[in-house]
Amino acid sequence: MSTLSGNDIIVLFLGIALMLGTGRVLGELFRRARLPSVVGEILAGICIGPSLLGRMAPDFFQWIFPAGTRGSTALEAIIYMGVVFLLLVAGLEVDLSTVIKQGKSVFVMSAFNIAIPFALGSALALLAPGLFGRSGSIVLALFIGVALSITALPIIAKILLDMRLFHTDFGMLVLASAMINDLFGWLIFSIIVQLSSTGAVDSMLILKITGLTLLTALIILSVVRLLINQALPWIEKHTEWPGGTIAFIVSIGLVCSAATEAIGIHAIFGAFLAGIAVGDSQHLREHTKDIINQFINNIFAPLFFVSIGLRVDFIGNFDPALSLILVTLAFGGKFAGSIVGGRIAGVPLRESMLTGSAMSALGAMGIIIGITALKFGIIPERTYVSIVIMALATSLLSGPLIRFFLKTKERFSLAVLIDEHAFLASLAGRTTNAAVGELAAAAARKTGIDAATIAERVIERESIMSTGIGDGVAVPHARMAELESPCVIAGLSPAGIDFDAPDGMPAHIIFLILTPLGDQDSQIRILAEISCVFSDSAIKRLALRAKDHIDFIEAIGSSCTPAE
Amino acid sequence: MSTLSGNDIIVLFLGIALMLGTGRVLGELFRRARLPSVVGEILAGICIGPSLLGRMAPDFFQWIFPAGTRGSTALEAIIYMGVVFLLLVAGLEVDLSTVIKQGKSVFVMSAFNIAIPFALGSALALLAPGLFGRSGSIVLALFIGVALSITALPIIAKILLDMRLFHTDFGMLVLASAMINDLFGWLIFSIIVQLSSTGAVDSMLILKITGLTLLTALIILSVVRLLINQALPWIEKHTEWPGGTIAFIVSIGLVCSAATEAIGIHAIFGAFLAGIAVGDSQHLREHTKDIINQFINNIFAPLFFVSIGLRVDFIGNFDPALSLILVTLAFGGKFAGSIVGGRIAGVPLRESMLTGSAMSALGAMGIIIGITALKFGIIPERTYVSIVIMALATSLLSGPLIRFFLKTKERFSLAVLIDEHAFLASLAGRTTNAAVGELAAAAARKTGIDAATIAERVIERESIMSTGIGDGVAVPHARMAELESPCVIAGLSPAGIDFDAPDGMPAHIIFLILTPLGDQDSQIRILAEISCVFSDSAIKRLALRAKDHIDFIEAIGSSCTPAE
Repeated sequence: MSTLSGNDIIVLFLGIALMLGTGRVLGELFRRARLPSVVGEILAGICIGPSLLGRMAPDFFQWIFPAGTRGSTALEAIIYMGVVFLLLVAGLEVDLSTVIKQGKSVFVMSAFNIAIPFALGSALALLAPGLFGRSGSIVLALFIGVALSITALPIIAKILLDMRLFHTDFGMLVLASAMINDLFGWLIFSIIVQLSSTGAVDSMLILKITGLTLLTALIILSVVRLLINQALPWIEKHTEWPGGTIAFIVSIGLVCSAATEAIGIHAIFGAFLAGIAVGDSQHLREHTKDIINQFINNIFAPLFFVSIGLRVDFIGNFDPALSLILVTLAFGGKFAGSIVGGRIAGVPLRESMLTGSAMSALGAMGIIIGITALKFGIIPERTYVSIVIMALATSLLSGPLIRFFLKTKERFSLAVLIDEHAFLASLAGRTTNAAVGELAAAAARKTGIDAATIAERVIERESIMSTGIGDGVAVPHARMAELESPCVIAGLSPAGIDFDAPDGMPAHIIFLILTPLGDQDSQIRILAEISCVFSDSAIKRLALRAKDHIDFIEAIGSSCTPAE
Repeated sequence: MSTLSGNDIIVLFLGIALMLGTGRVLGELFRRARLPSVVGEILAGICIGPSLLGRMAPDFFQWIFPAGTRGSTALEAIIYMGVVFLLLVAGLEVDLSTVIKQGKSVFVMSAFNIAIPFALGSALALLAPGLFGRSGSIVLALFIGVALSITALPIIAKILLDMRLFHTDFGMLVLASAMINDLFGWLIFSIIVQLSSTGAVDSMLILKITGLTLLTALIILSVVRLLINQALPWIEKHTEWPGGTIAFIVSIGLVCSAATEAIGIHAIFGAFLAGIAVGDSQHLREHTKDIINQFINNIFAPLFFVSIGLRVDFIGNFDPALSLILVTLAFGGKFAGSIVGGRIAGVPLRESMLTGSAMSALGAMGIIIGITALKFGIIPERTYVSIVIMALATSLLSGPLIRFFLKTKERFSLAVLIDEHAFLASLAGRTTNAAVGELAAAAARKTGIDAATIAERVIERESIMSTGIGDGVAVPHARMAELESPCVIAGLSPAGIDFDAPDGMPAHIIFLILTPLGDQDSQIRILAEISCVFSDSAIKRLALRAKDHIDFIEAIGSSCTPAE
């Protein structure tokens, strides 16, 4: 029988809509500033939470986010499903075989990336418990240790994807380390939760939980993984596609979550393992994954991220000293761990620094641990706020730090360079000169440089050696002193234009690439990305059908990542 | 602060997984039997509900679907969101301009499709209230009337889509009638709900609710619709695509639901209106719609359908007499309404019978009304069960009745005919004879007819007039006395085969079409569908990339519907 009243429903739906709306707006603003949109979503929660909205319009805030009603229980459950689904899709991104291929160095890296931050955090909590507003205890020390040693796999994955480093060796090393890191982080965390609820440090209990956690991970990643791999093709064949597969994956995620929760490990660890097990199957199709990813990343995950700020008053509980100490320790611990681990594993120093930069993003994971600790009364709200700030700060700085150590001023993703003004859906010209003229006119509008000048330089370059790279793609280009940053114009020619390609085929997709004279890298990078993306004939077919720049970006968005 | 315990989470997740799993299995079985999968999902709920599981394993049932816990409140909220989202996507399918273009006849049709079943139901409740286990009352009479007069737009849409009648004139007439029908059905329903909660029949109240409902519908379908149409391109341009659009649509749906609930109309009516307003925008992209559709139709909607059977013991409360009376009245009312309405509107009798068949599917809508009536104590569980049975029976029979009146033995959807044995991803032959030989061999395996015989007849037919229909498609075919039902084999030839097409282009997609000798219709229908589907060059490109029959069906699945 129904127990939710009409008012519960109204408040619940408006609350969710408000969370999705503000989360989206701030998330987009951050994305446009090339910062993780997750941070924008968390800030949105702080804005519509007790920190801001609760102060400015307390009555409205109480009405839309009530406490202790049936509606608030429902919202909590939906948010909980959000974080479980978030970990499920995070798991989908993990490539288990690559982790194993990385071998020893990954394990050494992760061991130190856990041990050093953990030691630093625990030591601080033991030596200065007053900082955390509690008297010293083993549980508090363990908790602060684990909060500093866990990493935010979803945020790291997102940063690496955005920077197109995901499938590189470096990306896989970082992801594999983060994965093992999280595995052990959650293991320790489960023990802490058990300890805090029983109140006693019992070595048999620790042993039991440790054994169970490892066993669960082993079972899901071996037996369950193989079963899923067998089941997927059968399901695809015998159920309505892709619906059956989507329902299957979501169900598996929920069952694994429930199973881990039942044995005393947190539910989201099970969802994460389930995601890995599903994502590892070669039978999982991109289209299926895309639907799950889109819906979860755009509806469920933002609800969770926004909810982080809803729980606590961030302004009233702001502790600048503790926040600063935690941020410093987080970076210090991860960099120290990566450098020491890297030295022992024989990883070059630059790569260790890169790994440290990436691993220091604590993001959602640190926050989830913070929420649980808050719930169990291990830490007060003041400490929770500092942990969220630590998670935000490390997540924000992780990307810039990677860029700094990569010594790359800017990454050139075609998808970023091609906006609405940089795409011509149908070139009228049938000759090289005519096509270059049209593209140059578009480039002129974007850069302010005279179109004739651009066309002249490009044709001059073309005369030295033609730029038809075959398979229907041509890349006329030039370096120009007048430019500050690269400019790429993409044009489609349904009729085809002869760019004197080695295979004799006319070009249907033509990129005009203009780069600053002094910049040695960008032209090479852009050319490399184009040739990598369009080596896939399916992408080429999709791109050719583009009616506008969104279609075009969508087509090349599903593309390969150039190996570094 | 968190209020859900670990156990709540475990039970909630396992309950959802059980619902999704069983719903899927029975839904697929029904789909394979060419019956609405929705009915299978509802039956799954009866199986895992108090009717079966509750009897066979009462302890387990109590554990996994507890009553009155925080987890059950959460499940209820998620199911509620399920039905709201279901109506949102149902609304997306409604083409408002087509409704308006249908003009007067639609309004006459719907008027009688509401009035006659409503009169029949109300009269029964007034004359024999004992049948419904209650003493007679205006509220009961109104409720039975509305339960019989509402139609299940999502199920009707699904049946029409499955039968490829969705975009035909007939399909649009039915959908438009169903839409107006539902609009008024919900209007009356809102009044009943208000009456049953205030307990008094107040004409001012009725007037107020009527006015508000009409006003809301008008505002959402005019002002809000125009605003959405303006907002969509802006959102697509300025947010990450398609995520921003998805979040926007879901938010709009939730806000409109909350708004209608707030003014005393049911929340799902608002979601339905929001869906229409969004779906009407020409800026909504298919890919965005696809993601929303897939996730909602495969996760949220099944949860709602399965939950129908979870509420009540269907075996203990089964009342055969009442069920039979309601089913008879439902069909009688809708057919009478369609015939009378059709006669007045000048619709041919056959089309009226078709409309009556389609409109008689009461499905989810009747059930939602039943649930609400049960909740408000208007009807007892026994009557609720009969209403669900009526909804199931009418939904099950609607499709067969349409087929009967269409006088079509079988609809030929390419997607249905092409299974894993009917698809050759890469034809080796380079000549007409070689390709036909390969296709004939596949057809021989499927039909048991000798491959040489098939090839001979097809080549014979080919010699009279070649079957290359141009644009890279060829349709070699033959009628065969040995066949019982049509057989289609699709083959791809990356190299291309000369089928002497009018445009001189080689054929890359070749369909071998074998139909029974006596069957006049099927060959024409299949040929019509192929030429219709492949008139879209995008579909052709996608189909050409198919690696197996699922890829192929996926490509042609997004196809146009041949007009009848």
